[in-house]
Amino acid sequence: MKYLLSIRFLGSAYQGYQVQKNGPSVQAELNRAAEELFGYPCDIVGCSRTDSGVHAEMFSATVAKKGQSDLPTAIPPERVPLAMNAHLPEDIAVYRAVPVTDDFHARYDVKSKEYRYFIYDNPIRNPFQEGRAFQFRAHLTDEAIDRMNRAAGYFVGKHDFRAYMAEGSKVSTTERTVFSAGVGREGDCVVFHVEADGFLYNMVRIMTGTLLAVAEGKLAPEDIPHVTDSLDRRLAGVTAPAGGLYLWRVHY
Amino acid sequence: MKYLLSIRFLGSAYQGYQVQKNGPSVQAELNRAAEELFGYPCDIVGCSRTDSGVHAEMFSATVAKKGQSDLPTAIPPERVPLAMNAHLPEDIAVYRAVPVTDDFHARYDVKSKEYRYFIYDNPIRNPFQEGRAFQFRAHLTDEAIDRMNRAAGYFVGKHDFRAYMAEGSKVSTTERTVFSAGVGREGDCVVFHVEADGFLYNMVRIMTGTLLAVAEGKLAPEDIPHVTDSLDRRLAGVTAPAGGLYLWRVHY
Repeated sequence: MKYLLSIRFLGSAYQGYQVQKNGPSVQAELNRAAEELFGYPCDIVGCSRTDSGVHAEMFSATVAKKGQSDLPTAIPPERVPLAMNAHLPEDIAVYRAVPVTDDFHARYDVKSKEYRYFIYDNPIRNPFQEGRAFQFRAHLTDEAIDRMNRAAGYFVGKHDFRAYMAEGSKVSTTERTVFSAGVGREGDCVVFHVEADGFLYNMVRIMTGTLLAVAEGKLAPEDIPHVTDSLDRRLAGVTAPAGGLYLWRVHY
Repeated sequence: MKYLLSIRFLGSAYQGYQVQKNGPSVQAELNRAAEELFGYPCDIVGCSRTDSGVHAEMFSATVAKKGQSDLPTAIPPERVPLAMNAHLPEDIAVYRAVPVTDDFHARYDVKSKEYRYFIYDNPIRNPFQEGRAFQFRAHLTDEAIDRMNRAAGYFVGKHDFRAYMAEGSKVSTTERTVFSAGVGREGDCVVFHVEADGFLYNMVRIMTGTLLAVAEGKLAPEDIPHVTDSLDRRLAGVTAPAGGLYLWRVHY
């Protein structure tokens, strides 16, 4: 038995989730907090890597005693969030803990993950959105959002998504299955959501840049299958900045 | 002719709006930006003081040449927001500028101001709300929110609000007219809104503390007129923290 934690974090101050040689990471903070709480060094296994500056509304990670597959503790799971949070900085918080079996793996057992990308579509920057949404310097009309939404629909399905992967990445396969994808307005922001069984490096940010190219009329929604099938990174859009991206849900 | 600016700011990094001997202020940043943009020292007159850590969704301030009542410039008002923002830090942004007459006064000509106070009612803290909403460590039920809303209703009208003023404040009169007040849920937060012709020092924060005492059952909604009429600060609730408070609208 070990614990699976659900975590929110504001990624602005971190080099990303995973431990880095240089610079702070969310994982290092979780490691330190877990050791302080449970009284011995721990292994934290996360559901995913994240880029520097990317946020999480829901990040999943298991905590076990270092080098073991279980977590010997008298602290019941319902008390773990408050107890962990007392040892964590303001920009990271555990909000749920559930027991899982020793063989559960936070990364390999993921069935799907959902990301959301927030676009603040206004020529005037908003202090409350700095680092939390990407400022697109023009209003996105209902018609533009509709085109983005239709374009996003073409991402759905099992495809080779190499065109939307940062160059230089090394993975065994670039095939992924997108279960759902869409674009809509949420208040001051336009939001792209995409759920898949896995994501390539920078995939959501490149998809977002491609959808913004559709919004600007540089691409038509119907061009997306061609971009995808080309496997050519140069045909897709730019990589949208990290600050607008949130890991939103993790499903096991 | 001078310009009236509408400004958003995240107050977390500032000692408040007005220039302070020690520590950064929003006014000092606006002063510096205006001088850089218009090419001469300027006077910035704001609609209000604000406490350290308080935010503004809408703050109003005029800009004129220092020691004068007008602003000699060839920059048209519609270009001022983007031009000013290039000289302002990320947590302050001008989003509108309109010409006003020389005798317009940003503080004395205010007809009413609306404040909103955001309460994040959850035992688990949320990294995205840190410094932006006050964490109340229990869920506020619909019934509790209804009681808070009824209590807020008793603030409406012309009253002596001395019971909701920080001690040691010096003002000529403690009578103010509240035009509207209410409490409701907005997503993850419970929000108190109050519009009045003016506010005493810490008035909204003390009203919020009083409404939370109602939520906790320490006061009944019907006790509010008694608290108000007592003119006794000790009968009202605690002063809620600055980080949940937003100046929301200014009406001239």
